[in-house]
Amino acid sequence: MDFGFDATTNRYRERLLEFMDECVYPAEHAFHEQAAQMRATQRGWGPPPMLEDLKTEARSRGLWNLFLPGEKGAGLNNLQYAPLAEIMGRSPAIAPPATNCAAPDTGNMEVLAEFGSEWQRKEYLEPLLAGEIRSAFAMTEPDVASSDATNIATSIRRDGGEYVVNGRKWFITGAMNPDCRVFIVMGKTDPEAPKHRQQSMVLVPRDAPGLTVRRGMTVFGYDDADHGGHAEVVFEDVRVPVDNLIGEEGGGFAIAQARLGPGRIHHCMRLIGMAERAVELMCRRVLTREAFGKPLARQGVIQDWIAESRVRIEQLRLLVLKTAWLMDTVGNKGAHTEIQAIKIAGPATVEWILDKAIQAHGAGGISQDFPLAALWAGARSLRFADGPDEVHKRSLAYRELKKYMR
Amino acid sequence: MDFGFDATTNRYRERLLEFMDECVYPAEHAFHEQAAQMRATQRGWGPPPMLEDLKTEARSRGLWNLFLPGEKGAGLNNLQYAPLAEIMGRSPAIAPPATNCAAPDTGNMEVLAEFGSEWQRKEYLEPLLAGEIRSAFAMTEPDVASSDATNIATSIRRDGGEYVVNGRKWFITGAMNPDCRVFIVMGKTDPEAPKHRQQSMVLVPRDAPGLTVRRGMTVFGYDDADHGGHAEVVFEDVRVPVDNLIGEEGGGFAIAQARLGPGRIHHCMRLIGMAERAVELMCRRVLTREAFGKPLARQGVIQDWIAESRVRIEQLRLLVLKTAWLMDTVGNKGAHTEIQAIKIAGPATVEWILDKAIQAHGAGGISQDFPLAALWAGARSLRFADGPDEVHKRSLAYRELKKYMR
Amino acid sequence: MDFGFDATTNRYRERLLEFMDECVYPAEHAFHEQAAQMRATQRGWGPPPMLEDLKTEARSRGLWNLFLPGEKGAGLNNLQYAPLAEIMGRSPAIAPPATNCAAPDTGNMEVLAEFGSEWQRKEYLEPLLAGEIRSAFAMTEPDVASSDATNIATSIRRDGGEYVVNGRKWFITGAMNPDCRVFIVMGKTDPEAPKHRQQSMVLVPRDAPGLTVRRGMTVFGYDDADHGGHAEVVFEDVRVPVDNLIGEEGGGFAIAQARLGPGRIHHCMRLIGMAERAVELMCRRVLTREAFGKPLARQGVIQDWIAESRVRIEQLRLLVLKTAWLMDTVGNKGAHTEIQAIKIAGPATVEWILDKAIQAHGAGGISQDFPLAALWAGARSLRFADGPDEVHKRSLAYRELKKYMR
Amino acid sequence: MDFGFDATTNRYRERLLEFMDECVYPAEHAFHEQAAQMRATQRGWGPPPMLEDLKTEARSRGLWNLFLPGEKGAGLNNLQYAPLAEIMGRSPAIAPPATNCAAPDTGNMEVLAEFGSEWQRKEYLEPLLAGEIRSAFAMTEPDVASSDATNIATSIRRDGGEYVVNGRKWFITGAMNPDCRVFIVMGKTDPEAPKHRQQSMVLVPRDAPGLTVRRGMTVFGYDDADHGGHAEVVFEDVRVPVDNLIGEEGGGFAIAQARLGPGRIHHCMRLIGMAERAVELMCRRVLTREAFGKPLARQGVIQDWIAESRVRIEQLRLLVLKTAWLMDTVGNKGAHTEIQAIKIAGPATVEWILDKAIQAHGAGGISQDFPLAALWAGARSLRFADGPDEVHKRSLAYRELKKYMR
Repeated sequence: MDFGFDATTNRYRERLLEFMDECVYPAEHAFHEQAAQMRATQRGWGPPPMLEDLKTEARSRGLWNLFLPGEKGAGLNNLQYAPLAEIMGRSPAIAPPATNCAAPDTGNMEVLAEFGSEWQRKEYLEPLLAGEIRSAFAMTEPDVASSDATNIATSIRRDGGEYVVNGRKWFITGAMNPDCRVFIVMGKTDPEAPKHRQQSMVLVPRDAPGLTVRRGMTVFGYDDADHGGHAEVVFEDVRVPVDNLIGEEGGGFAIAQARLGPGRIHHCMRLIGMAERAVELMCRRVLTREAFGKPLARQGVIQDWIAESRVRIEQLRLLVLKTAWLMDTVGNKGAHTEIQAIKIAGPATVEWILDKAIQAHGAGGISQDFPLAALWAGARSLRFADGPDEVHKRSLAYRELKKYMR
Repeated sequence: MDFGFDATTNRYRERLLEFMDECVYPAEHAFHEQAAQMRATQRGWGPPPMLEDLKTEARSRGLWNLFLPGEKGAGLNNLQYAPLAEIMGRSPAIAPPATNCAAPDTGNMEVLAEFGSEWQRKEYLEPLLAGEIRSAFAMTEPDVASSDATNIATSIRRDGGEYVVNGRKWFITGAMNPDCRVFIVMGKTDPEAPKHRQQSMVLVPRDAPGLTVRRGMTVFGYDDADHGGHAEVVFEDVRVPVDNLIGEEGGGFAIAQARLGPGRIHHCMRLIGMAERAVELMCRRVLTREAFGKPLARQGVIQDWIAESRVRIEQLRLLVLKTAWLMDTVGNKGAHTEIQAIKIAGPATVEWILDKAIQAHGAGGISQDFPLAALWAGARSLRFADGPDEVHKRSLAYRELKKYMR
Repeated sequence: MDFGFDATTNRYRERLLEFMDECVYPAEHAFHEQAAQMRATQRGWGPPPMLEDLKTEARSRGLWNLFLPGEKGAGLNNLQYAPLAEIMGRSPAIAPPATNCAAPDTGNMEVLAEFGSEWQRKEYLEPLLAGEIRSAFAMTEPDVASSDATNIATSIRRDGGEYVVNGRKWFITGAMNPDCRVFIVMGKTDPEAPKHRQQSMVLVPRDAPGLTVRRGMTVFGYDDADHGGHAEVVFEDVRVPVDNLIGEEGGGFAIAQARLGPGRIHHCMRLIGMAERAVELMCRRVLTREAFGKPLARQGVIQDWIAESRVRIEQLRLLVLKTAWLMDTVGNKGAHTEIQAIKIAGPATVEWILDKAIQAHGAGGISQDFPLAALWAGARSLRFADGPDEVHKRSLAYRELKKYMR
Repeated sequence: MDFGFDATTNRYRERLLEFMDECVYPAEHAFHEQAAQMRATQRGWGPPPMLEDLKTEARSRGLWNLFLPGEKGAGLNNLQYAPLAEIMGRSPAIAPPATNCAAPDTGNMEVLAEFGSEWQRKEYLEPLLAGEIRSAFAMTEPDVASSDATNIATSIRRDGGEYVVNGRKWFITGAMNPDCRVFIVMGKTDPEAPKHRQQSMVLVPRDAPGLTVRRGMTVFGYDDADHGGHAEVVFEDVRVPVDNLIGEEGGGFAIAQARLGPGRIHHCMRLIGMAERAVELMCRRVLTREAFGKPLARQGVIQDWIAESRVRIEQLRLLVLKTAWLMDTVGNKGAHTEIQAIKIAGPATVEWILDKAIQAHGAGGISQDFPLAALWAGARSLRFADGPDEVHKRSLAYRELKKYMR
């Protein structure tokens, strides 16, 4: 047992920390100003133009596609990438897209790298890896409890050399980014097949006839326009060639499962970065703000928040890292309990910390003047992502109970 | 001891419940559509036009200025008005303004009715009571911990027959509503006076030279445009006649205190109405949504949320009603502990219930498709209003401890 | 709506408060010393001898059988008795038995007064009312989830002019008090009858052949010897005359239900008295104890505990009082939701407060030197009494959901 | 980074798990029966006789003094011993004393091994290592907030060739065990010295004239007689030779600090073992107990408890292990934050889990029929040990804040 980072990780951490200090944090104010202006002038969805410069800079520093194992990416395993995702999470609107490590593209690239055909990789994976286009992942549906992937109702019907897609999806993150060129769509190719063999995934170009991006869903009032929002998307007799099928018919559920593990680790590590940012902001604030004749930092209740935040972060981070290690050493299956555990613990823990940081900032904390309220909304929404916590607790409990049956 | 409503209250409750059923709930969808359109077309801040019809209707039903005791209003005491405020809270964007019972005008009208000069009442109270104009209350400042009113730094300097106002305020609710014509501004007329005699309140017309409404502050991602937002406002050498002083010089702190008590009861009762709405939405949702082969309503964890919500609401409501009764029978001073207690318990309790209702709705719960996320943001922001909970707990604890000091 | 006590209540409150100040609090130390000595010398179970003097004194002051409505008791309704139960709860080992208002006798006397035959009332109710004997209520069984009274498995079989009782009960409070002369035993007379008509209650004298008091169950290490402990009791072919049946065959469930309502109110009000005692002890302690150069009372975290305790107590008390009022005005059925709500909220709230008071006392708080740990164990055990909280939440939620079923 | 155990740890874990399965668990029932009988017959304090056989067995299996690094013990470092302490914690009344790894002897042996003179080691360390005698650590005092070691008021005055000890201590664990032969006593040798140089530690034989073991303090209702209770001890002019000084005069504070780090790890790992035991008991119970027509295991609320327990345990364990690793690699100082963090997180987390396991057991859970209530009392009392959580949070927060002070 050894709790130190290896040399590769340390090297990347240093490089990334430098990039954060020199390029990301200094850009935050202007980034949000540009985003606000775009919104005010209704120039629409998508990132502020300055993002392109940051991407160029990151790439030149060797900070590109860090999430992707193998030759196409930086070649890091989960345990090596996790601490980098944490650092990116400290500025989650900028650092991940600047390094081409932003969801949902990361998961989509993994899927294409692992399951995509040669043609699919050439057509979509290459430009995604190059940061030239973005993509979306269309799974969640408004009319069913999507926590159970087998509920997905969108139909993908074979018709000659084409698939015909019909259905309604929502909370499709990034779909309104003008750079978003392709959707990975999950749907049913065979409703009569066994439960876990009914779904397939197909690539649907964004400009396919019949595909309508209807509106952006808000998350506690935020439209998240700067990363393409969260769209409601309708598919009406959308036709794509059969070559657009990813993997095999009936393989959708398995691909979705494979996509989940690393995604949870990325999410949770970014959350931890957000929590660290919040603790820093909280400490700085309470050291400089006075009330009733002394700095807030000397109020016992606020000290309690700070200490609890530290204690909870340390525990959570270790569990996420261990999960990454398990995935690297025994695979998704062997890490099942831990993958669920971090999904349960991560958002709830970080939401709590962000709430305290907000409270320490007074009214400013809930406004646009600090990143805290937006970070909170992000953390809160993750209590639903990939299914609500409650579903995961049920399943985890069941596995625990099974140890003691018969 | 008697826990039943009196006849007057019951009569008003019936009338108001009818109005909610016949006019308010049916208008909600269109109201939010109009508001969204106004935002999309940048027609600016302020309520959707349909509000005027609702006001006319409410007034014709004798549901007008219910909050105001005495001849000018409905003549109800706090204990009689409280259950009506709860009912209004079930649709908090519509029912309070439709019945001319919306903050901050309610508090402002109370101030003018109790402390205003004849001229002030004619000029401002009359049109406010008639629902012809709106008003704002400018107290909170970005640069000081406004939880302690004695911190207020805005300067109100006498210069001949005028007062000159200089300072910066923020989170001035309703200030961007085009109908908002006047601000009650709290500031220091005499920084050398004893601590509680330094502040005064003056009426500042919205179009006074030197007054700039700089921007709307967001609450989480909400701009609350439909009720005039929460503005940052700058006063630069703004001049008003000395007749605009409310009450006497140095009386600002006392007026602020007098304004607080009923305001807290209104806030807390509306919160309870929001909580009841949330429980109703949660119940309806879980009865109709299926997952894993049965309605969500049969999941034990969700039953637990519903039961806890009911248990907490019942307790909270009784405390708010008792506080109203104390204010009516022994006055603000005698109800001090209870007024603080409801400020502490109200937002936290209702925030918890809203969170659970959101969780029961899945991703929809955090979006614009249900009122829950917006209600949550409102409840959360009340954990700061009139000072953060922590300040009130300190003060309440001190009073408790004093019982045992020799 | 009126939150003031009526004249009768105020008169009894004053009298009882005087008794507490003059007789109960001053006796506490000696009472616990006597109890400890009895334990050390194995003189066995039962109250310290000094209790008899306190009973005589209470009776002479007109503080006797206050719980019992009607001519036989003080004639108070639930709303009038509730505030007196709260006061008694401040010294729960002494005040209730001293005034002949201690569980389980209170419930047993109510049952006999309402359902007992003339003979039963003469034989058992009279001496109970006179404080000459004690009694026990034997319902909970170790082998079934007794939260559902229909699970009770003890058999009460008719055999000629006798009933034959067979079964095992535990946590039979007071059973080892040598003054305890009779058990009210719940069991099945007809396992084939409809679910709520299977049970009956019979009176079993403590010296009946076949009845064995096997051992005392502990509650977090406490044997509660001074009020007769919590016994495991075995019934092996215990025979009683048919005249010992209370009410009618099959009426056991209904009697148990009738017994519950007032019992919950008594429990919850005593809990509130315990909480008030805890807050007082906590305040006194932190005002006099110094750490890190200032009294603990000036630590923000401790102030937070005190304030939260006050806020929670005020809410809880009002709900219990309203429940009492509902029982008096609309009966058990109409107060169903509230009776469950106080069962859920009471023990949990008071347990929380006691935990904080303990923490404020340091190691002393968990020891015999302060009453807090023992009070805590009592409050904690009430999270099971009459069924675990979870069962009551389920049932309460179901009633809430029913409002919205078609 | 590597989350696997090393070979040595694995070897010891296997051996210890075998011992638990073959000797410890099977002995539990008889152990508690013997202890109960000893209490009933007032044969006094101390372990049941059968413990000696278990010690012999453990020793023969090479499971002896595992906690002690270096040649005298098993030679394991903290990271290697920690997982063994966890396993012992599953049966905390038996496994630690059976393997001579029980507090407070472990800490005392460490002190003697590191700071003791040759004479002291021969006289006391040798028989302690051999399991022939037990010892106590006398630090906590009833009259001061002992959380700050500098408050300790007991006087250790030099008088010629002797030290004279005067003072009062309480919660001196193990002091009433007849095998306990020596106390390490903390007191002030020089009240005028700088704050952290005032205290010293001396060895006081239990039979020294002037030393009175006055009474056993209870923890909730438990006297913990089987491991020697928690005594109040009075020192009146107790004289010991100057050779009984441990280390140097004024070195008491430093020794106490050195003793703390490993002690916290042991406590926390045993707590985790207790939590694992509780989860196992909870699972087994709910799988076999039916209510309302299905096993409790199928109740959502109980599944939630099980899942949360697992999620919390996994996080906590990793933090304790990391702390052990830090202590081994960078020492006590470098692990300061983590040592405090586990002290804060450990007892609170495990108390929560035990509470849920108790609730799942119904009334039995709080009784002597399951180990849960006693384990709970132990965990709860650790929220005070080495100072209340609140003191540690303050200190941890201060260190966090310091990062941001210029």
